[in-house]
Amino acid sequence: MDKSRFSRPIDLHDVAVTDEFWHREQELVRTEVIPYQWEALNDRVEGADPSYCMHNFKAAVRQKEREGEQGKQFEAPAYSYRGFNALPEDPKHPDPDKFYGFVFQDTDFSKWIEAVGYSLVNHPDPELERIADGAIDIVCAAQLDNGYLDTYYILNGMDRAFHCLRWHHELYCLGHLIEGAIAYWQGTGKDKLLKAAERFADYVASVFGPEPDQCKGYPGHEIAEMALVRLYEATGKDKYLKLAKFFIDERGTEPNYFDYEGERDRRDNYKDTNWTFDLPYAQAHKPVREQREAVGHAVRAGYLYSGMADVARETADDTLYDACRNLWRNIVDRKLYITGGIGGTHEGEAFSYNYDLPNDTAYSETCAAISLAFFARRMLEIEAKSEYGDVMEQALYNTVLAGMALDGKSFFYVNPLEVNPEACAKDKRIGHVKPVRQKWFGCACCPPNIARIVSSVGEYAFTANDSTLFVHLYAGGSVSASFGTGEAGDDRRQLTLEGTSEIPWGGKASYTVHAGAQAPVHATIAFRIPGWSVPSGVKVSVDGASVSGVAAAELAGAFGAAGKSAEVRDGYLYLTGDWSDGETIAFDFPIPVRAKRANPQVREDVDKVAFVRGPITFCAEQADNGADLQLNRVDFARAGYDMKGVGVRRVDDVFGFPIVELSVPVLRLADDGLTPGEGLYADYAPAVEKAAELTLIPYFTWANRGVGEMTVWIRA
Amino acid sequence: MDKSRFSRPIDLHDVAVTDEFWHREQELVRTEVIPYQWEALNDRVEGADPSYCMHNFKAAVRQKEREGEQGKQFEAPAYSYRGFNALPEDPKHPDPDKFYGFVFQDTDFSKWIEAVGYSLVNHPDPELERIADGAIDIVCAAQLDNGYLDTYYILNGMDRAFHCLRWHHELYCLGHLIEGAIAYWQGTGKDKLLKAAERFADYVASVFGPEPDQCKGYPGHEIAEMALVRLYEATGKDKYLKLAKFFIDERGTEPNYFDYEGERDRRDNYKDTNWTFDLPYAQAHKPVREQREAVGHAVRAGYLYSGMADVARETADDTLYDACRNLWRNIVDRKLYITGGIGGTHEGEAFSYNYDLPNDTAYSETCAAISLAFFARRMLEIEAKSEYGDVMEQALYNTVLAGMALDGKSFFYVNPLEVNPEACAKDKRIGHVKPVRQKWFGCACCPPNIARIVSSVGEYAFTANDSTLFVHLYAGGSVSASFGTGEAGDDRRQLTLEGTSEIPWGGKASYTVHAGAQAPVHATIAFRIPGWSVPSGVKVSVDGASVSGVAAAELAGAFGAAGKSAEVRDGYLYLTGDWSDGETIAFDFPIPVRAKRANPQVREDVDKVAFVRGPITFCAEQADNGADLQLNRVDFARAGYDMKGVGVRRVDDVFGFPIVELSVPVLRLADDGLTPGEGLYADYAPAVEKAAELTLIPYFTWANRGVGEMTVWIRA
Repeated sequence: MDKSRFSRPIDLHDVAVTDEFWHREQELVRTEVIPYQWEALNDRVEGADPSYCMHNFKAAVRQKEREGEQGKQFEAPAYSYRGFNALPEDPKHPDPDKFYGFVFQDTDFSKWIEAVGYSLVNHPDPELERIADGAIDIVCAAQLDNGYLDTYYILNGMDRAFHCLRWHHELYCLGHLIEGAIAYWQGTGKDKLLKAAERFADYVASVFGPEPDQCKGYPGHEIAEMALVRLYEATGKDKYLKLAKFFIDERGTEPNYFDYEGERDRRDNYKDTNWTFDLPYAQAHKPVREQREAVGHAVRAGYLYSGMADVARETADDTLYDACRNLWRNIVDRKLYITGGIGGTHEGEAFSYNYDLPNDTAYSETCAAISLAFFARRMLEIEAKSEYGDVMEQALYNTVLAGMALDGKSFFYVNPLEVNPEACAKDKRIGHVKPVRQKWFGCACCPPNIARIVSSVGEYAFTANDSTLFVHLYAGGSVSASFGTGEAGDDRRQLTLEGTSEIPWGGKASYTVHAGAQAPVHATIAFRIPGWSVPSGVKVSVDGASVSGVAAAELAGAFGAAGKSAEVRDGYLYLTGDWSDGETIAFDFPIPVRAKRANPQVREDVDKVAFVRGPITFCAEQADNGADLQLNRVDFARAGYDMKGVGVRRVDDVFGFPIVELSVPVLRLADDGLTPGEGLYADYAPAVEKAAELTLIPYFTWANRGVGEMTVWIRA
Repeated sequence: MDKSRFSRPIDLHDVAVTDEFWHREQELVRTEVIPYQWEALNDRVEGADPSYCMHNFKAAVRQKEREGEQGKQFEAPAYSYRGFNALPEDPKHPDPDKFYGFVFQDTDFSKWIEAVGYSLVNHPDPELERIADGAIDIVCAAQLDNGYLDTYYILNGMDRAFHCLRWHHELYCLGHLIEGAIAYWQGTGKDKLLKAAERFADYVASVFGPEPDQCKGYPGHEIAEMALVRLYEATGKDKYLKLAKFFIDERGTEPNYFDYEGERDRRDNYKDTNWTFDLPYAQAHKPVREQREAVGHAVRAGYLYSGMADVARETADDTLYDACRNLWRNIVDRKLYITGGIGGTHEGEAFSYNYDLPNDTAYSETCAAISLAFFARRMLEIEAKSEYGDVMEQALYNTVLAGMALDGKSFFYVNPLEVNPEACAKDKRIGHVKPVRQKWFGCACCPPNIARIVSSVGEYAFTANDSTLFVHLYAGGSVSASFGTGEAGDDRRQLTLEGTSEIPWGGKASYTVHAGAQAPVHATIAFRIPGWSVPSGVKVSVDGASVSGVAAAELAGAFGAAGKSAEVRDGYLYLTGDWSDGETIAFDFPIPVRAKRANPQVREDVDKVAFVRGPITFCAEQADNGADLQLNRVDFARAGYDMKGVGVRRVDDVFGFPIVELSVPVLRLADDGLTPGEGLYADYAPAVEKAAELTLIPYFTWANRGVGEMTVWIRA
């Protein structure tokens, strides 16, 4: 590994994403999702499943108070299993001293506080901060003296804590608590929750580890791995990195810990959970360095791979990075929807086998696309390669955003690429596919996950190291980076980019340098050349000196007039030189409409194409095109193979904010092919078709105009 | 209804199906299936799930003997629910006094004895008859004094008999017992089992009926309806017809009996089975005369519709026949696979919504295709319309036969139209789809169902009434029919047809008349003009007088020279006149290859075609064509829209008996479209294809050469 290529996200205080695209999304999160979610955490949303999240923390506090009062008289609860999702017998009168909800319900709070933390960075809000501080007080008061903090076991009986790692979620709760605590600390400077998370992490580090008297287990649902690396980075405490590495190194090794757990339960005739466990479901079927195919629960997988990349970077572990690259290749070459979604099957919410990417029965969980963005960003932090950025962008602009309605009030868990509402209503086989977004889920992972990634999108747009500022996503706004090691000959110096971007709707983006008092500032600024703009010539100008092309040879020395050297590496354009105030770097990326075909091993998509333009994947909806979308076939005679015949129009009035629509020339099977009396089967004859135009909208905007058909793939 | 058009199957003693196609299948049943099945009934098949069928009958006999010995001391078992499929704790030592297996396990015997009965008609076999008599002795000894005969309740407790009609299967057991008993009586003249079936039916008729003190329930799993009509016809006892009509008239009326059962159980807090019941699953959601869409469990549905048609004919009930026609139209126009299969979804083994006919996730149970053949034959018995015969033929020659391996030793329950073995192995969503036939099933409905329909195929080929002999299927062999009412001016007279047939492999069939001593015999012989031969000109000759065409005008009077009048009605050619010995009716049906497209509402099949020739539907297998069948596209430039470019070849060596293979010119996507490194998505470009030939085999012969891909639908 080449450590000089490593980079890290920039502190969100130093990033302001202000372009209309992302600002709108962030404002939705701030004004709709975060307040709504707080109500949900407190079971005050009419018609939605109660979360019981704050209820559980309060119950744990009450229990602790009783313990304090009763002292040695206090009888701690002896563990009893009450189900993976325990509900009160009388929903109107939950017992104030009992745990309810899913075993991982604590994380509702952690995900909320994480989004709150990011939001407060750019949008101080004393009232929100007051509410958050109050919640943190309750959460911290629930923590046991030894640092343990998962109300599921605190309330149900600590005697079985850490006894069911494969199904229960204590380490998952730890991971989310760390992520939330760090975000809130970053957003407010307040470290009360961070200290609580550290204490929990310290306790976990005492229980798990390589010493003979330590447990050799690891998380059933991953996330602690990447969270611990982040905690290491936030605190500088090496033990958290060691624990993350331990979890990763231990995973899937023999004797298999999850098998051991099941065998122990079988021996003890302990029947709360199954004795057998599907190891690939939790990526525990072999040591992670030997895994070459992405398998199992897709969110778990994405979180694991992210943690692996984190540890690989922090420990400069080539074998671990190799494993990350193998898994990346398998996902991108075999298991990735063109919407940036992953995890094709609802069976285990999992990756299906290679090339199995069904459209109408797709799972493609919102959180799985988010986990892919996590993974991609971490791969970028190791090496800036445009492919990582392309996939991250594809996930973010399509499936991640599709997870949330345009009014921020309803959410998709599942993101199909084809919907026939009749099938959703009548076909139990696709009971998981909903034609409209749902208000909230009892298992509410996706809404807060969208909230936290949208609020922190600046961390995905920009990373930096001592010499280079990387622009991965062309977000409009500003970003400041500091360069230099501070050692002799390499003074610390700061540089700010401020710019505007048309992306995703147009191809122009322009950044102006602010070098401040230290100008000129010597630095490298590296810009991702998006895959969607290649191989057409990219137009770049630096302070007026302009050049077209993408190859290194075309760019080398091109900016001599501006005093910059240019290099292209792995799809990034590195501009190095002394930067002065007011210098402008402008891009004009070609953003043509492209009709994409899938590898014909994807049986579902043979003879079909999907339309993309820039980072946006498009789809056809019944609202624009009527029913029976399967009747339409792309008319290449009019569209041209270069898709120059496809209309591109900016519209402002469909959803109340600007988007780009496509108008695709199609041939539509004539209605007389549908005469009901005709019966089912007729002798083949060339189709009778009529020329028509098919309106395509961005995939992330689908299902905002009532129930109707939708399809991403269109007959070719 | 026009009663003069009614007809009935001909006694199997008067039919001999000897053509090589059907004779081979019947011999398989006789030599393989029936002996194997007897071993299975007695739990003597190594590696197969035990049936426990004869075990249960013997246990019931033992119990009855105990009762006889103990007299009033005998304590009858009080009902306890032991599950829908009760298995012994120690499989090696089942308790000889307990019931095991599915609640409907008695029917294994009834289905077996039915096949035995048919088989003995044409192939007397004293040893088999001895075994069967022995089994009948045991079964009859198990019958209660009141006539009740279902070992499930006899052994588990009669106090809950007839208390769970929606899920348990007493009336289903009654139906199969009747069918088996009649077949054995027909085959051997022995009526011991028939008398037992009558006694059970008498008891059921005392429990269920319109009187105020009778139960208003009806079968959860239909079959008793058609069986009771058959019992009425066999015995002349009107009460059986009345009971059948009662079951049909009562079904789905308000207050709904199945809802009542559930509510009663809820009231009594009786928790063995769900209180709620999916009424459409059992076609009990509305009165049968108001049902216009085929819904629910497809076998149940097909059996119900068959019973409805029987009762409609026997009672000349137009409203009931209208309902049958509505349901028929819905199946044939919306819910029928091109393989003659029905019931597209494994969820409830049921009809899916209109036009939902998935290929790779298909259910298409063998028994459902059999039930469709039942229904079609009964529709033919009301009115001879070629459409009914076409569908019956399509079901029989494709899905029904596909249910059994060519060696008669393994069976499909599920009949997909597309198989990717990797998906079968890895995708739990299609866990029901097997790429190879299974040895036997615990729930062994399909193998014996195939056995009984193949053994009695003569009943599907020919029906007759007082004036007309109908030839529905062109089976080679002989059939005798009696004409005349026996009243003055209409003497009873007999006529025999003896003939040969190339169908399904060729289009020629020829029948010679044997009129015997009464010659010439005045009669009408009606021949189905198969839909697959229309609109090409059918060539018909009667005693040398030959004509081509299918319209009435083309045929009327054409056979004057032979002294016959000709009429075409609903796709049947009626030849009327005085028939003498040696007169020959010969057909030359065009049997072209046809490429069929589906109605484009069948989303799965858009842009695809399936190949049929005569009654046979074809498919492509990996064994002939390599993997990746999805890469092939029909090359219409070479095949021609008339499919004259498709090769038709008779081969004898592939499966050891003659079949016809097709050779279809295709264009195959070049392998370089599959370069693994290419990734998943590429810009669309016209496909690079290579000309190739795709070998198609009859669908019913698939999966007899190991595991591989298969597809019926091919890209067009």
